[in-house]
Amino acid sequence: MKHMKGVVIAGKNSLAIRDDCPLPEEICPTGALIRPLIWSPCTSDAHLCATGCASLPYLLNKAVGHEMCGEITKIGADVHDFKVDDRVIVCSVMPVWRSLEAQDGHAKNRQDNMYAGNDDPERGGSFVEEYYIHDADMNLARIPEGVTLEQAVMVPDMMCTAFEGVRQLAPGYGASVAVLGVGPVGLMAVRAAVLHGAGNVFAIGSRKVCFDVAREYGATHLVDYHNEDYIEQIVRCNGGPVDGVIVCGGGESALNKGLSMLKNGGTLVNLSAYFGGKPLEIDPAVWGFGYGDKTIKGVGCGGGRLWMTRMAQLIACGRVAPEKLITHRYHGMDKIPEALRLFLNHDRSLIKPVIYND
Amino acid sequence: MKHMKGVVIAGKNSLAIRDDCPLPEEICPTGALIRPLIWSPCTSDAHLCATGCASLPYLLNKAVGHEMCGEITKIGADVHDFKVDDRVIVCSVMPVWRSLEAQDGHAKNRQDNMYAGNDDPERGGSFVEEYYIHDADMNLARIPEGVTLEQAVMVPDMMCTAFEGVRQLAPGYGASVAVLGVGPVGLMAVRAAVLHGAGNVFAIGSRKVCFDVAREYGATHLVDYHNEDYIEQIVRCNGGPVDGVIVCGGGESALNKGLSMLKNGGTLVNLSAYFGGKPLEIDPAVWGFGYGDKTIKGVGCGGGRLWMTRMAQLIACGRVAPEKLITHRYHGMDKIPEALRLFLNHDRSLIKPVIYND
Amino acid sequence: MKHMKGVVIAGKNSLAIRDDCPLPEEICPTGALIRPLIWSPCTSDAHLCATGCASLPYLLNKAVGHEMCGEITKIGADVHDFKVDDRVIVCSVMPVWRSLEAQDGHAKNRQDNMYAGNDDPERGGSFVEEYYIHDADMNLARIPEGVTLEQAVMVPDMMCTAFEGVRQLAPGYGASVAVLGVGPVGLMAVRAAVLHGAGNVFAIGSRKVCFDVAREYGATHLVDYHNEDYIEQIVRCNGGPVDGVIVCGGGESALNKGLSMLKNGGTLVNLSAYFGGKPLEIDPAVWGFGYGDKTIKGVGCGGGRLWMTRMAQLIACGRVAPEKLITHRYHGMDKIPEALRLFLNHDRSLIKPVIYND
Amino acid sequence: MKHMKGVVIAGKNSLAIRDDCPLPEEICPTGALIRPLIWSPCTSDAHLCATGCASLPYLLNKAVGHEMCGEITKIGADVHDFKVDDRVIVCSVMPVWRSLEAQDGHAKNRQDNMYAGNDDPERGGSFVEEYYIHDADMNLARIPEGVTLEQAVMVPDMMCTAFEGVRQLAPGYGASVAVLGVGPVGLMAVRAAVLHGAGNVFAIGSRKVCFDVAREYGATHLVDYHNEDYIEQIVRCNGGPVDGVIVCGGGESALNKGLSMLKNGGTLVNLSAYFGGKPLEIDPAVWGFGYGDKTIKGVGCGGGRLWMTRMAQLIACGRVAPEKLITHRYHGMDKIPEALRLFLNHDRSLIKPVIYND
Repeated sequence: MKHMKGVVIAGKNSLAIRDDCPLPEEICPTGALIRPLIWSPCTSDAHLCATGCASLPYLLNKAVGHEMCGEITKIGADVHDFKVDDRVIVCSVMPVWRSLEAQDGHAKNRQDNMYAGNDDPERGGSFVEEYYIHDADMNLARIPEGVTLEQAVMVPDMMCTAFEGVRQLAPGYGASVAVLGVGPVGLMAVRAAVLHGAGNVFAIGSRKVCFDVAREYGATHLVDYHNEDYIEQIVRCNGGPVDGVIVCGGGESALNKGLSMLKNGGTLVNLSAYFGGKPLEIDPAVWGFGYGDKTIKGVGCGGGRLWMTRMAQLIACGRVAPEKLITHRYHGMDKIPEALRLFLNHDRSLIKPVIYND
Repeated sequence: MKHMKGVVIAGKNSLAIRDDCPLPEEICPTGALIRPLIWSPCTSDAHLCATGCASLPYLLNKAVGHEMCGEITKIGADVHDFKVDDRVIVCSVMPVWRSLEAQDGHAKNRQDNMYAGNDDPERGGSFVEEYYIHDADMNLARIPEGVTLEQAVMVPDMMCTAFEGVRQLAPGYGASVAVLGVGPVGLMAVRAAVLHGAGNVFAIGSRKVCFDVAREYGATHLVDYHNEDYIEQIVRCNGGPVDGVIVCGGGESALNKGLSMLKNGGTLVNLSAYFGGKPLEIDPAVWGFGYGDKTIKGVGCGGGRLWMTRMAQLIACGRVAPEKLITHRYHGMDKIPEALRLFLNHDRSLIKPVIYND
Repeated sequence: MKHMKGVVIAGKNSLAIRDDCPLPEEICPTGALIRPLIWSPCTSDAHLCATGCASLPYLLNKAVGHEMCGEITKIGADVHDFKVDDRVIVCSVMPVWRSLEAQDGHAKNRQDNMYAGNDDPERGGSFVEEYYIHDADMNLARIPEGVTLEQAVMVPDMMCTAFEGVRQLAPGYGASVAVLGVGPVGLMAVRAAVLHGAGNVFAIGSRKVCFDVAREYGATHLVDYHNEDYIEQIVRCNGGPVDGVIVCGGGESALNKGLSMLKNGGTLVNLSAYFGGKPLEIDPAVWGFGYGDKTIKGVGCGGGRLWMTRMAQLIACGRVAPEKLITHRYHGMDKIPEALRLFLNHDRSLIKPVIYND
Repeated sequence: MKHMKGVVIAGKNSLAIRDDCPLPEEICPTGALIRPLIWSPCTSDAHLCATGCASLPYLLNKAVGHEMCGEITKIGADVHDFKVDDRVIVCSVMPVWRSLEAQDGHAKNRQDNMYAGNDDPERGGSFVEEYYIHDADMNLARIPEGVTLEQAVMVPDMMCTAFEGVRQLAPGYGASVAVLGVGPVGLMAVRAAVLHGAGNVFAIGSRKVCFDVAREYGATHLVDYHNEDYIEQIVRCNGGPVDGVIVCGGGESALNKGLSMLKNGGTLVNLSAYFGGKPLEIDPAVWGFGYGDKTIKGVGCGGGRLWMTRMAQLIACGRVAPEKLITHRYHGMDKIPEALRLFLNHDRSLIKPVIYND
């Protein structure tokens, strides 16, 4: 076992850079090592830090991070589709493709480690010097010509989550969609909705920096949730309840709010994670008393090489400009804690930070 | 306006037979009058009675009832597919087929009267001498040769609801399904699951009379919810969480229980109505913390001529024997209150009662 | 019965303007009269003319045309959602919403007149002074604020057909789509594919005027079918067979060509009509010998108020600019024959003509 | 390389038992060796023999066969879910689960050998003494308690093909389905249709032995295709064209016949293979001239452990009795050629033969 530098959560609100993160000397025949070129921290990394890994204590003192692109430095003997020096996007969830879940169409629900975005909870995440992945052919994707590192590093979680959510929402042509919470995933959901044929797209948030991107991504209406009657306002403006809702924030009452603006027969996709331990409460009246044909889906980030390849393809074709999400840029692993603090401090100028490994 | 005899809710826990239920002298060109041949009261009729129509006060002192078959006594000039003396099943929900909701594939979510199962809240339900329906061609179905009245009267709500629920669940071949609550709709859901290719079907209930029918309908496991660990028992016996859940009872905690036995990537269909005013609570942990790809659908009874015709066709082809649900038989409208009291008294021998109009 | 002016097919390759086109004095309670503001002739009108209505002889000497927008001049007593002077898009197919086909989700397959795009073959099409429609609430759509007549008249067939085709193709995010034949419907299919998340979009045609619009609509590759190896070229350039194919031209061999470039598991949507009487031939080898999971769908134009409204909404939201299709503009009904001759003469500068009624 | 006994195609209409079929000394870590307990020959084996492997010449002199159950004799180090002596069903197609096709939901369209039903064309099929499979965890399924060998050996192709076809047809509750050709796969399709909620099921064939099973499986109508007007007869008897068609025989004109009895908006699933080199011809008129919303799917056998497990589960739950297909029983590998000759001789008493390896 070799050791290397990595960013770890050392306790509640405490980050550290340690030099004893483990790395096996040998890799398996289908595996690969990747040297990071760019990282991006995520709200969920920040949440882990804020709570000192309360919900997942085994992650304490392990490397954090699941949004990374890099270049391959070593490759197993059974890897067919990649070679050393290839520039790749690394999957943030790690579906196990030889599994019954995969045969059931739910590969992403069979991961060996549901949270940290890697395939070995012992080793932890990708904010390290060198990252080991078990199944290169299945869980890496090549960065296409013309796609920048900044664009590519928005693929593993921001795009893979938002587009998966809208894929499952499946709005029809001209359908109205409300996105509740336009942080980085919500903004991507705005774009995904436009690219799934939505008509009216209501971006519900409060910060100008986000609204500006929402507008560029095709949102037709910008709605401030500080307006007490913003739900009525949306329904009025839309000429009736919306066809679909994406929840990307708002806490335990978000489902209820989303259902309040949703038509009978419509679908709400939830992309938020709820770790607070509090129950989610649904008022039967906003859910058609149980028989209004309103569907609620709790959707997780999509993964695997094909899904990431398709996201990258959308960027290459000019359909999505994910770099618009990036508000902060840093250089060097040592700056990762500073970038993560932007989340902890609720910096109002932040959408997404990236850190170049140089 | 003519007057006629009908069964009305006169107050909390109070039923009455009145002779001043209204009936228009004229019917519209697409309408029909139907003389009931058989009625069946429903839990929801009983619930209305128990609460004195608290949730829908405009139904007080109006005719109740939405499960009825009869023969046509009068027909509008623009009705093409039915004629006087035809024996028909009457829709329990009344989709409005010339509506945008219908064009959206959600016809059943556009009814002129969401509860009482008719198309005019002024006139009320079908426990009357003569029943007026606005759109005969669209919301009646012929009783096929060889299908009895007892079978046919199980179509409008029992079959139309349960089969709609399982249609939306769409279990795959060999999938495992748990039905939480095997009253009459739950029992029909057992049968519907078998006829949608389910393998293991867990019938969760407590009464022998229901379990016996569940077994005949194809349930592979009978589970008593009085066993404290019945959820663990199902998961163990199934070799893992089930692929699908149908909730047909259990109150405000039923969703949580259903989600507890459901696999990630699975679907829960709710067929219960929640009128108690209490919130439905979901523990995030049983819902995959919001990202386990568990879907929750709140499904209403399917309606319209085609859906009812297809239900009747399943009976005619020998696929479903809905008469097995019928535990109590009466004759004459005057017996309807007695039949309804079976529900109010939680009679343990009851699945469904029918009343012949003779 | 009143009489009015209209454009009729008088024989093979012969058009005439007659002043004895019939119009009822009375309209039905759900009906409306519409005074045309703009018309657009269609390839299928031209085909009818070229063959002298050989396939549908009852259309001879009747008014032709099914792409029209206008303003309401008279309205039936039971029309609720429109009033005189409203500017509306008129459905080109006329689904019968009170039908079992509609209840089956195939409303468009129940029309009282499959070809001429109206609801009464006796009266014929909409290239007339005043057009009568039976069900205004269901088969008209309001022209939204900010949408021009030129845009709106591209809705009834060009958009309603192409978007219906791509809706049924349902390409996934980043999927590759080939559009075989980029006349006006094919060009709209290019745009519809982009708005359904497609990545690579191959526009297969031969005329510069069309390729220019294809590029503006988001086609990533322009492919000339005069190149003998254009199919191999597409497969090579795409890195394998495409995920989906839309056939909008190419005659009886088009299915075979489309299947040749389609992956196993992919879908081909056909939007061409085949009236030549010749069989369509499929080489089993390009269809995976019957077991390659290649799907072939023969899709017709979508219709009804909701579908048209959603198309108009896409225009209003700036997602589609259908006016880019319009290459020729005329004024006055008398110019319709001249516009139709563009098709008959295979004018290489033509995509779509419009004629203002002024 | 070891050698063993196996049944090979030695030339046109010529079968031989050879003792030099190859078997590697070593197996890969995910692999397993299986000793056959029961085999079943298939029409496609017979077709290969009849043509002397004309379409797939590399199969000449290699072991044939793809329907087999057996017990595991050796297991690779990375196999987790099976052990020596387990009785298993062997997949007849061999999906490669670590593939982009699998990530695309089309695992079965990525096989290393599309015809012979194994994962190595060098070694050939499973009519051998010992059969080597590369990915035991993914492509074997345990035979459940209570399921016999005769039942189990109907899973890999007969059930896996027919149920996959009906899964993709997805008939709604009460829908009418016609099965064109009720040999063994067609008969299974009858049962699969019943277990997907079909109402009327038309079994189209000519032999009494098949009709008897069709009736037991739930067919409502038995139709002899020697009746010249059998298509009209079906449409009349069904009260209109059917909702779905499954083609399991009938040659190059079967698609056309199937489409002739199919409603607009309906789906035809083809389960036949077409190796004759002749084109499939479709008369546009029976396909709605290309715009009748009739869908044609060319479906291949489903595969993988989960799909086979679910089929076996249906047997274990008593939903399917596949042993009813078996008309001929033999003992010993030496009898396989005799069993195959039943197909070559078009024996009218044959549905399926099995050969026990004892």
